[in-house]
Amino acid sequence: MAKNIWVIGGDPRQGALVRLLAEDGHGVHPYALERAEGVKCEPSMAGADRADCVVLPLPALGPDGALNAPLSGRSHPLEDILAPLRPGQLVCAGMVTEPLRAAARARGLVLRDYFAREELAVLNAIPTAEGAIQIAMEELPITLHGARVLVMGFGRLGHALVPRLKGLGAHVWVCARRYEQQAAAEGMGAGVEGMDRLPDWLCGYDLVINTVPAPVLGVEELAALKEGALVIDLASRPGGVDKESAAALGVKVIQALSLPGKAAPVTSGRYIKDTIYHLMDELED
Amino acid sequence: MAKNIWVIGGDPRQGALVRLLAEDGHGVHPYALERAEGVKCEPSMAGADRADCVVLPLPALGPDGALNAPLSGRSHPLEDILAPLRPGQLVCAGMVTEPLRAAARARGLVLRDYFAREELAVLNAIPTAEGAIQIAMEELPITLHGARVLVMGFGRLGHALVPRLKGLGAHVWVCARRYEQQAAAEGMGAGVEGMDRLPDWLCGYDLVINTVPAPVLGVEELAALKEGALVIDLASRPGGVDKESAAALGVKVIQALSLPGKAAPVTSGRYIKDTIYHLMDELED
Amino acid sequence: MAKNIWVIGGDPRQGALVRLLAEDGHGVHPYALERAEGVKCEPSMAGADRADCVVLPLPALGPDGALNAPLSGRSHPLEDILAPLRPGQLVCAGMVTEPLRAAARARGLVLRDYFAREELAVLNAIPTAEGAIQIAMEELPITLHGARVLVMGFGRLGHALVPRLKGLGAHVWVCARRYEQQAAAEGMGAGVEGMDRLPDWLCGYDLVINTVPAPVLGVEELAALKEGALVIDLASRPGGVDKESAAALGVKVIQALSLPGKAAPVTSGRYIKDTIYHLMDELED
Amino acid sequence: MAKNIWVIGGDPRQGALVRLLAEDGHGVHPYALERAEGVKCEPSMAGADRADCVVLPLPALGPDGALNAPLSGRSHPLEDILAPLRPGQLVCAGMVTEPLRAAARARGLVLRDYFAREELAVLNAIPTAEGAIQIAMEELPITLHGARVLVMGFGRLGHALVPRLKGLGAHVWVCARRYEQQAAAEGMGAGVEGMDRLPDWLCGYDLVINTVPAPVLGVEELAALKEGALVIDLASRPGGVDKESAAALGVKVIQALSLPGKAAPVTSGRYIKDTIYHLMDELED
Repeated sequence: MAKNIWVIGGDPRQGALVRLLAEDGHGVHPYALERAEGVKCEPSMAGADRADCVVLPLPALGPDGALNAPLSGRSHPLEDILAPLRPGQLVCAGMVTEPLRAAARARGLVLRDYFAREELAVLNAIPTAEGAIQIAMEELPITLHGARVLVMGFGRLGHALVPRLKGLGAHVWVCARRYEQQAAAEGMGAGVEGMDRLPDWLCGYDLVINTVPAPVLGVEELAALKEGALVIDLASRPGGVDKESAAALGVKVIQALSLPGKAAPVTSGRYIKDTIYHLMDELED
Repeated sequence: MAKNIWVIGGDPRQGALVRLLAEDGHGVHPYALERAEGVKCEPSMAGADRADCVVLPLPALGPDGALNAPLSGRSHPLEDILAPLRPGQLVCAGMVTEPLRAAARARGLVLRDYFAREELAVLNAIPTAEGAIQIAMEELPITLHGARVLVMGFGRLGHALVPRLKGLGAHVWVCARRYEQQAAAEGMGAGVEGMDRLPDWLCGYDLVINTVPAPVLGVEELAALKEGALVIDLASRPGGVDKESAAALGVKVIQALSLPGKAAPVTSGRYIKDTIYHLMDELED
Repeated sequence: MAKNIWVIGGDPRQGALVRLLAEDGHGVHPYALERAEGVKCEPSMAGADRADCVVLPLPALGPDGALNAPLSGRSHPLEDILAPLRPGQLVCAGMVTEPLRAAARARGLVLRDYFAREELAVLNAIPTAEGAIQIAMEELPITLHGARVLVMGFGRLGHALVPRLKGLGAHVWVCARRYEQQAAAEGMGAGVEGMDRLPDWLCGYDLVINTVPAPVLGVEELAALKEGALVIDLASRPGGVDKESAAALGVKVIQALSLPGKAAPVTSGRYIKDTIYHLMDELED
Repeated sequence: MAKNIWVIGGDPRQGALVRLLAEDGHGVHPYALERAEGVKCEPSMAGADRADCVVLPLPALGPDGALNAPLSGRSHPLEDILAPLRPGQLVCAGMVTEPLRAAARARGLVLRDYFAREELAVLNAIPTAEGAIQIAMEELPITLHGARVLVMGFGRLGHALVPRLKGLGAHVWVCARRYEQQAAAEGMGAGVEGMDRLPDWLCGYDLVINTVPAPVLGVEELAALKEGALVIDLASRPGGVDKESAAALGVKVIQALSLPGKAAPVTSGRYIKDTIYHLMDELED
C-alpha cells in the first residue's frame, strides 16, 4: 500500500532512496537534498507531520550535531527537522547517537536505527567487498587471478569477500581465532590459519584484507610482509593496522571505510529501502 | 606431541579415525572395530587406563544402550568399556545421552561431546550437502545445471548447499523467515523468498531441499509442487515433510539422514579427529 | 510455427523429446516408443510422409542394423521406417553410419546427423560432467570438497568439469599437451601440468578423470597412483586407460560412456530438440 | 638451464620481465629501460650478440618506426638495436609489423611474434576481464552483485568474463551468433541470446561489455539501452560501438584497450615470459 514518506538530508544514497521509493509507488517528499541528481525537494518541512515514515540519513547527524546534509545548500539544525513532526510518528535514522535519541524521545517520536539492523549489515558486506576488490585491482600490479590473498577475520565481511575473491581466481586464506569460523572458511573453500605467530607465515601473501576491529597488524606483522604486498584495512576506526609502523616500513596500507555509500550508492539506497520496509512492517504487526 | 589414544567401536568413520590419528604420529589403540578395513584391534581394554584420550563413536550408544559397535563381532555393554578407565581421563563421545553422562560422572571421567561442537556441525554440512547433491543427481532425469532448486532454511546446511548448487549451474532460491538469513542468501547470489504462502509459488521448482526441522511441507504445499518434482528432506527426525500426504499425492520424498558418515566416512573421520584435537587442546589450556 | 514431427524409436531421451516438442506446440507423432512413459504411439508409419521432420534416435541403428528401438515391443527393420517417407523429407538422426546414409540417399531423403553438431557436443559435456561427479561421489569415501582431482585433457569435457569440480570445493589440476589448452585451464583457475613424466607426479591425486581418447594411463602411470585413488575414464572406446593393468594393480577404474542419456535423459532430449530446431532453421534459410 | 637474455625497451611489463627472468636464474641484460623501477640497464648493446634470446617489447616499434621505449631516456632507431645482433639469433617481439619483419630477415635473425601466440592471447583475457570489471566497479553506482550484464561475443574474452562476473554475483547473459558459442555460454551458466533484434531486448541491462570487433552497437541499439546503462568496449580499434551516436544519445561508453599492460603489468610480464620459454623450447626441439 502506498505510503507517505519524507526523505531528509544525506548523500547520494538518500537521493537513490527517493527514486526507488517513488518507483515502488509511494508518495515521496525529499527535503534537504537540493543538489541530489533528479530530485525535486520540498521547500519546507510543512506537511511532514502527515508522513507515515520520516527517513533521516546515514549517519543521521553531522559532526556539528546538525542534520547530515552534504547535498543541501545550507545547515539544518536537528531542531528544525524534528519540531514539525507529530508525536508517535516513525522516524528511521542511521547510526543513531544519544543526542538524536534524546531529542526524539522528548518529542514522543518512534525512533528506529536502520543501521543497527542485522540484515542491513549483512547486505552492506556486498558493496564493501566489491569496493575492497576494486581498490585491490587499482593498486596491485598483478591480477587478483593467481594472487595469494589473506582475509583476516571471518564475520560478515569475510563471508562476502571469500567467494568473490575465489570467483576471480585468487588463492584465498582466512585467519580467524574461533574454530567454528575456521570451519566455515574451510567450507567456503578457503585455506585456514589461526591467529597465532602471524609473522611466521605472513610473507606469502600479495594482499591482506583486514576485517578485525582490533590491533592485529603491528610492527612485527607488517615487517614480515613481502615487498610490494598491499594491506586493505576494512575494520572501523581506529582499524586493525599500525599505520605509523606501516609508513615507516614502507608498507602500503589503504584504510577503506564506508565503502557501500562510496562504491555503490544506488545499491546502498536499495538496501536501506528494504530495511525501512521491514521496520514499517514490524511496527504494524 | 604424540598421544596415547583409544578409538572404541563405531562405523567406518572410526576406522578412518584410527588411520588418520596414526598418520599424525599418535599411538592409536583400536577396540571393538574388528571388521574395520585395515585396522588391527586390541584384544581387550587392558591398558586403556593409560590413554590420554578415549574416543567413543557417533552416536556413542546403540538403541540397546550398549556401545554402538556395528563393526565389532559382539556386543559391548557400556560398563565393560568404562570400568577399565581411570578417573580424570578424557572421554570424547558423539551424541552423548543421559545414561552415558551419568555413567561417566559416576566414574569421574571427563566426558566431552564432540558432536555438540559448532565446528563439527559446520564441517558436517559439507558432506551433507554433497550427499544431497548426489541423491538429486541419482534421482532426477534432468541435470542440476539449469534446474530450479529451492533450499528451505538458511542455517549451516543452506550455507553449504547454495554455493555448491550454483557451482553446478542450478538456479537456486532460498526461503527463510528471518530477514538476516534472507540477506545472507541474497549475498550468496540466491533468489530469496519468505516462508509465507508457499503453495502460491512452489510450483516452479524441480527440486526442493528442506533443512528446517519443523513441519513446512504439508499437504497443501506438496500438492502445489509440479509433477516430477523431487523433495529431499535433510531435517532431523521427524523431518519437515508430511510423508503420508506425499505418498498419497505421489510426490517423491527422500529423507536423508546422517549423510556425512554414509557419503564420506573418511572425511567425516577427519572432521572428528580435528574436533578431538580441539577438545584435547582446550583441556590442556 | 507449428510443425509436423515424427519421433521414431530410441530410449527415454526420445520419449522426453516427444513431450518437449508437444509442449512447444508442434504436432508430434511418436512411433516405436510403446514403452516410453506417457507417450501414445502411432499404430503405423501411415502419415509419416507428411512430416516436416523425422527424428531417428541416437544412435539411429542398433548393432543388428535395424532401428535402435529399446522401448518398442518389436524389431523395426530400417527399410520399414524409410520406405513410407517421401523424397526430400528431412530426416534427423544421431550417429549416422554408412548403411543409413546409403539408404537415405537411395530414397532421396535429406539426412542430417544431429550428433555431429558442435553445439550438441558442447551441451552434452554438461550432463557428462554431472554424471562423472555423481560417480565420484558414489565411489569415493571422501568428499569432493578438498579432494585433489586431475582432469586429463582440456577439450569440451574438461571445460565442463573444471568449474563444477571447483564449485564443489575440489582442488583441480588439468594436464594437457597444448600450450593454449594449458592457458585456458589456468584461466579457469585450475593448476596446470603438461603430459610428460606422469608417473613422477600422479601420486598426489585422489581422483583422475580422463577425457583423452588415447592410451594415457598405462601400467607405469597406474602404478604411480596412490592407494585408493579412483580413475574415471570418459574417453570413448577403447578409452585411455589400460584396464588389464589396472585390474592387476588393484586400481579402480570406471569407464563411463554415454552419460547424458543415462544421467539426464530429459535434459538430453532437450538438447536434441534444440539441435533439431537449428537443423530445420538452416534448411529453411 | 640458465640462458643469456636481453630485454630491450618497452613499458613496465618489460621491467617485470627483467625481474622474473632473473628470479628464474637467467642472465638478464636490460637495455633501453633506464626508468624502469629496480632495473639496472646495460650502457650499450655490446655483448648482445651472445644472447640466446633477445626480447623486444609489445608493440615492438613505436608509431615513429623506432623501438617502442617509453621508459628509456632517448630514441632508439630499429637499426641501432638490430645491427649489433648476430645472424641466427632468436628475437622475440610483440605485434610484429612488416618493417621489423623485413629488417630481421635482411640480417638473418630468427624472428618470432609472441603476441601472435594463442596461449598469450588466452592468458591476456584474464587481466583484460579484470580490467573491465574494475572499470565497471568504478563507473557504476550499483554493485555488480545483482547487476544485469550482457557480454557481446563469446570468444576468449567472453570465456574469461562470464565466470568472473558470475563469481561477483552478476546476472550474466551472452549474445553470440554461432550455436556452439551459445552452447558454451549456456554451459558456463550464462543466459543466452542470439545477435538478432538487439534493440528489442537491450533495455534490460545495466552493463554491456562488447568483445565483438564489428559494428554491433549502432544508433538503434544504443537508443534502446536503459538510462544510466554503461557500455565497455573491449574490441580492438575501431571497436564495436558507434561512439558518435553514443555521445549524441548521452550513453556512456568506455573504450578500454591494452588492459593487460595497464591493469596488471607484472602478471602480463609473466605471461610474456612463459610464452618466450615456449618459443625457445620449440626452437630447440
